[in-house]
Amino acid sequence: MPSIQEVPARQGRAVKIARGQALQIINTFGTQVVDFWAFDARDLGAYLSMEHTRAALSRLTPRTGDILVDNRREPMLSFEADTSPGIHDTVIAPCDRARYVKLGCAEDHASCHNNLHRALDSLGLAVPVCPASFNLFMNIPVLPSGDLEWRETVSKPGDSVIFRALIDCIMVMSACPQDVIRINAGRPVSVQYSVLDG
Amino acid sequence: MPSIQEVPARQGRAVKIARGQALQIINTFGTQVVDFWAFDARDLGAYLSMEHTRAALSRLTPRTGDILVDNRREPMLSFEADTSPGIHDTVIAPCDRARYVKLGCAEDHASCHNNLHRALDSLGLAVPVCPASFNLFMNIPVLPSGDLEWRETVSKPGDSVIFRALIDCIMVMSACPQDVIRINAGRPVSVQYSVLDG
Repeated sequence: MPSIQEVPARQGRAVKIARGQALQIINTFGTQVVDFWAFDARDLGAYLSMEHTRAALSRLTPRTGDILVDNRREPMLSFEADTSPGIHDTVIAPCDRARYVKLGCAEDHASCHNNLHRALDSLGLAVPVCPASFNLFMNIPVLPSGDLEWRETVSKPGDSVIFRALIDCIMVMSACPQDVIRINAGRPVSVQYSVLDG
Repeated sequence: MPSIQEVPARQGRAVKIARGQALQIINTFGTQVVDFWAFDARDLGAYLSMEHTRAALSRLTPRTGDILVDNRREPMLSFEADTSPGIHDTVIAPCDRARYVKLGCAEDHASCHNNLHRALDSLGLAVPVCPASFNLFMNIPVLPSGDLEWRETVSKPGDSVIFRALIDCIMVMSACPQDVIRINAGRPVSVQYSVLDG
């Protein structure tokens, strides 16, 4: 049995995933959004790209069986499994200090942006920009008008997704600390992950 | 009368737009997609961001009257006018060499990605990444399934958009050279632009 690790509420974690291994991300309580990124372990300038993946798939949101590509349009991840209803977001930027200041929060409110940089730093790594994230379990329906709504997740406790690495990757998760709007049901909680061998 | 300049077919142009000035982009023949970017003239690391603008507007696509924000969530542009039907795209990455190679084209096929870098170079400027572009007049409907379609423009000859600069900006346009899929009606053509004073 692979060991299960925790991403504490409002925090981030980065893990090296070798080609052929996979990362399972578990929505322990069902209500938590997880911002997700992946970087080429040999060149952090190559990263999972939402705008290139949407173009490759001709679809707004990836689903099981899809190949996710990086900003060079090279295959990076296989979206191998998803026990949730498949409601994820690719169009909203990760939260950051500016987002929370505009929402009236303190300057030091945790954010997915900071979680990305801190998680990479824990591996001795750094990136100059914060790419657009794949926002797992985040429920942002696009209405026929093009308007976006910010809703609570529709996943169940224990729902999980699995991404198989097609190249050596650094994968990063942030348990989104958003506690002002209701995307995390108003209460950011922890999630879990597990590294799966090939 | 402000002078009207041309962006030749398949090429890009970069222009400095001072705070209070505006850029009008004219779809001369109506059928042409224009990839558009804007950068803070004092710090090119701050750029018009599609993912932050979608979050700020809670809408997939900006329209007249909207304030477009940069990757720091700061107001950058006012979307002041649009005589087209308002069909633009924010979810598809600008075309690049890899895109055309995958479509079976030659390695040296023109691309919006290269046009961005060449246009900036003409002003003695450079950026390390190619941000997601605001794809003017590009008709990528999101179906209820989430699938994206690649359609021809619905704009008329002479339709135009106007972006007013809220800070000193470098704005970049690329007359998209896509001639394989039909987004430019199969025939990339020139567009025009004009710098408008405040």
